[in-house]
Amino acid sequence: MNGAQALIRTLVDAGVDVCFANPGTSEMHFVAALDDVPEMRGVLTLFEGVATGAADGWARMTGRPAATLLHLGPGMGNGLANLHNARRGRTPMVNVVGDHGRSHKRLDAPLESDIDAVAGTVSGWVRRSLAPEDVAADAADAVAAAARGQIATLVLPADVSWSDGAAVADPPPPWSPPAPPEARVAEVASVLQSGEPTVVLLGGDVLASEDGQLAASAIAGATGARLLAETFPARIVRGAGLPDIGKLPYPPEVAIKALAGTRHLVLAGARSPVHFFAYPGVPGTPVPEDCTVHVLSEPGEDGVAALRALGEAAAPGAAPELLEASRPELPTGRLTPRGVSAVVGALLPERAIVVDEAITSGVGIAELTSGAPRHDWLALTGGAIGDGLPMAVGAAVACPDRPVLVLQADGSAMYTLQALWTMAREQLDVTVLLYDNASYAILQGELSRVGAAGGGERAGQLLDLGGPALDFVALATGMGVPATRAGTAEELAEQLGTALREPGPHLVQAVLRPAG
Amino acid sequence: MNGAQALIRTLVDAGVDVCFANPGTSEMHFVAALDDVPEMRGVLTLFEGVATGAADGWARMTGRPAATLLHLGPGMGNGLANLHNARRGRTPMVNVVGDHGRSHKRLDAPLESDIDAVAGTVSGWVRRSLAPEDVAADAADAVAAAARGQIATLVLPADVSWSDGAAVADPPPPWSPPAPPEARVAEVASVLQSGEPTVVLLGGDVLASEDGQLAASAIAGATGARLLAETFPARIVRGAGLPDIGKLPYPPEVAIKALAGTRHLVLAGARSPVHFFAYPGVPGTPVPEDCTVHVLSEPGEDGVAALRALGEAAAPGAAPELLEASRPELPTGRLTPRGVSAVVGALLPERAIVVDEAITSGVGIAELTSGAPRHDWLALTGGAIGDGLPMAVGAAVACPDRPVLVLQADGSAMYTLQALWTMAREQLDVTVLLYDNASYAILQGELSRVGAAGGGERAGQLLDLGGPALDFVALATGMGVPATRAGTAEELAEQLGTALREPGPHLVQAVLRPAG
Repeated sequence: MNGAQALIRTLVDAGVDVCFANPGTSEMHFVAALDDVPEMRGVLTLFEGVATGAADGWARMTGRPAATLLHLGPGMGNGLANLHNARRGRTPMVNVVGDHGRSHKRLDAPLESDIDAVAGTVSGWVRRSLAPEDVAADAADAVAAAARGQIATLVLPADVSWSDGAAVADPPPPWSPPAPPEARVAEVASVLQSGEPTVVLLGGDVLASEDGQLAASAIAGATGARLLAETFPARIVRGAGLPDIGKLPYPPEVAIKALAGTRHLVLAGARSPVHFFAYPGVPGTPVPEDCTVHVLSEPGEDGVAALRALGEAAAPGAAPELLEASRPELPTGRLTPRGVSAVVGALLPERAIVVDEAITSGVGIAELTSGAPRHDWLALTGGAIGDGLPMAVGAAVACPDRPVLVLQADGSAMYTLQALWTMAREQLDVTVLLYDNASYAILQGELSRVGAAGGGERAGQLLDLGGPALDFVALATGMGVPATRAGTAEELAEQLGTALREPGPHLVQAVLRPAG
Repeated sequence: MNGAQALIRTLVDAGVDVCFANPGTSEMHFVAALDDVPEMRGVLTLFEGVATGAADGWARMTGRPAATLLHLGPGMGNGLANLHNARRGRTPMVNVVGDHGRSHKRLDAPLESDIDAVAGTVSGWVRRSLAPEDVAADAADAVAAAARGQIATLVLPADVSWSDGAAVADPPPPWSPPAPPEARVAEVASVLQSGEPTVVLLGGDVLASEDGQLAASAIAGATGARLLAETFPARIVRGAGLPDIGKLPYPPEVAIKALAGTRHLVLAGARSPVHFFAYPGVPGTPVPEDCTVHVLSEPGEDGVAALRALGEAAAPGAAPELLEASRPELPTGRLTPRGVSAVVGALLPERAIVVDEAITSGVGIAELTSGAPRHDWLALTGGAIGDGLPMAVGAAVACPDRPVLVLQADGSAMYTLQALWTMAREQLDVTVLLYDNASYAILQGELSRVGAAGGGERAGQLLDLGGPALDFVALATGMGVPATRAGTAEELAEQLGTALREPGPHLVQAVLRPAG
């Protein structure tokens, strides 16, 4: 048994049975070994950013680490942006990065680079397998490290992969997040009983769990605390029958307003909020200066258990407040961002997985979908655009019986558009709603927000995607994904409805142009 | 004057007057300052890999550093693969990577990452500008470092960019590569006079220079030494009236044969060759064990001067052997890779710039274009695929009066296809010849070469681009580039001729499918 075979068998035994791959020469034995271990599903992507983003989406939906197969340092570089997002979302992931054979390292061949340094910037665990007899145990260690909510990168020299002498390793023992110390529950309970203005900021595991949200809602109802969700959750379960939890807004001035007057901020699975960027004359965080921050559970701890314990202490017997089922009316006429959100709210299917990279175009989307049938919502956790289409690939591979809807801004779509091809290759049930506003609209706002808006023509050209216009119908069909274009709300409703009903991938380009 | 204004003015004064840009919020003041320094041309790309590859192409054609503008760590990650290629090609380049404002760094905002570590893996020079009064001098130092044939990365905190108190810095003094020590010339002259089998391997500055090639040819003719070019030169000037210098072949078994029997290998601007990858049972380098390697000039030294001095010492008065003008016949019938090469050889315009990412499809291309009118040829220096289309963008921006032809393999094209949009936006005179063989054909060869070929179906699926077929005509037109598809040699000749004659970008998809 060679190193590649032992590695793949060990991964499969440990529950890692999908590998999103962009192989090169140094990974050929890994590729060949896929025929020896048919339980491992290899999914080809045409660019590493698709592979890493897909692994992110797959792991968010399964809770298990996905694997990627990447080609040396440049391959890892191509995947780095979505690895960044995965790291920020605490996604478990195992990267297998092929490298030159051991004897070739010292020759400084053209593809030689410092893989370990690049890997270290996104990984909580990095190891280089230096012998075929070690590689399976290294893989098991990688899975164990990843399960703790981090990225594990295993660098695999080509000759370790192709050499015999390897043997399968036992899977790592299962891992559960630790419960937070009991003293925190008592501290937060006394804060809640103080009657002072309190916000409970939910994040991580709490938002992904119905039980966590129900416990939080009961506590809020009984104590008067307000609930907010972190701005960009990795996964949040939503819809009718669950509490209505608004997100802390992205724009700094709005976030500051949302927390104004708060005396206690309780963190349940969330980190203490900071603004995405620095702005001249604006403090770095929306937390008021006289607000005390209390940690109920840190990311990686069992926040659901902590909220249950808090409920027993601070709000015994209280009931959560739940949203009734509701859908917006289908809008008519010219398409606006809010109209698109209403169409989504009206048509969102049961058990949908929504991948949200709408950026500025998702106006009112949270409100207009909150009473829709139960669904999961995956956000851009690290701010590195180009995670939407790839995450949809991974979510659809993870959950073949659930419809996936991607809310995808145009500028961001262009970073990893190759994901469409994998959707077609694997016939994934993904509907891409493509917001075409022909600009990096968020940067037009940011240019003004940072005080740099001079109205200069040459600056404006760097934020404009309109010349030439991107024809996403042509781009999607060129990769095998059927596509249509909607210019009115009626057209969008009809096309999106069809796309969501039919199996397989579809793209609907929603044309959002200023009137006149 | 704020930091951004002083930085851009300093770059322009130092000869860096194009910036390939993918800006985000932290770069908004740099973008705004483009209206204050109109001599700086900002070229928008839709993905950072296009920006860095374009800068590579621009610098290879101008000899001056191009600038890129990238957005934090993930933006640099997206550009990393083509920075790797640029590093391997000794391309001068200045990256300006925006970062969070200084006060924001400690807050670990979502886009926080270790930019310096990522930058260090590809850069010969990395600095973080920590005050507006330093940024212009830092920029001048960056240009000076880049001019030595390396990548210089300047990390620019947003508030250093937006704060006043900056002033323009003087451009760095011009830099010339040092002449190699004279003792080397004498050593190599005595080798050449020994009469033992000798190969002179040319690379770097020597291949980019007509004078260097002429001197080398005269020496070879007079002494009996053989000339070879390094396998993937950054830039080689070619065509009728220049010597015929074959490249050291890529496949290890062929490279070993090409150097078999060589007793002396003289390096003129080239590094001592090693195989791209390790293969089971194959030595890492094609240099025979009993061959002595002599360095005439290292990369970064003045190899042309060294060859001139060597000519005076070893072959005074000798004349070079020059290629006569010749063109292949236009082929007919079914398209084959060699037939495509013949069409290129028959139609290559005067003063063309050829960007070569043909990978396996460029069969016979060197031979069939060697007698064409004088042209420059840019190769994939670092093996990280996806440099072809972006380099063409940069070469066309650098040389607006010259036609650019990209020989582009399909699998590699998909890595940075967004370059087509910038070609359309800037109306660059680029013709993309897209080899559509619907596979990662090189990996099918490599699978066998590394001894991993089992004929497994699941392995084969990871090397196959055929399901669904990529429609590059749709993909190109979707980004504003007119495109056609050629299924026969006649169609290719007609379509390629039209594309080369007409200004602006065009794509021709050459369909290479096995017969039957």
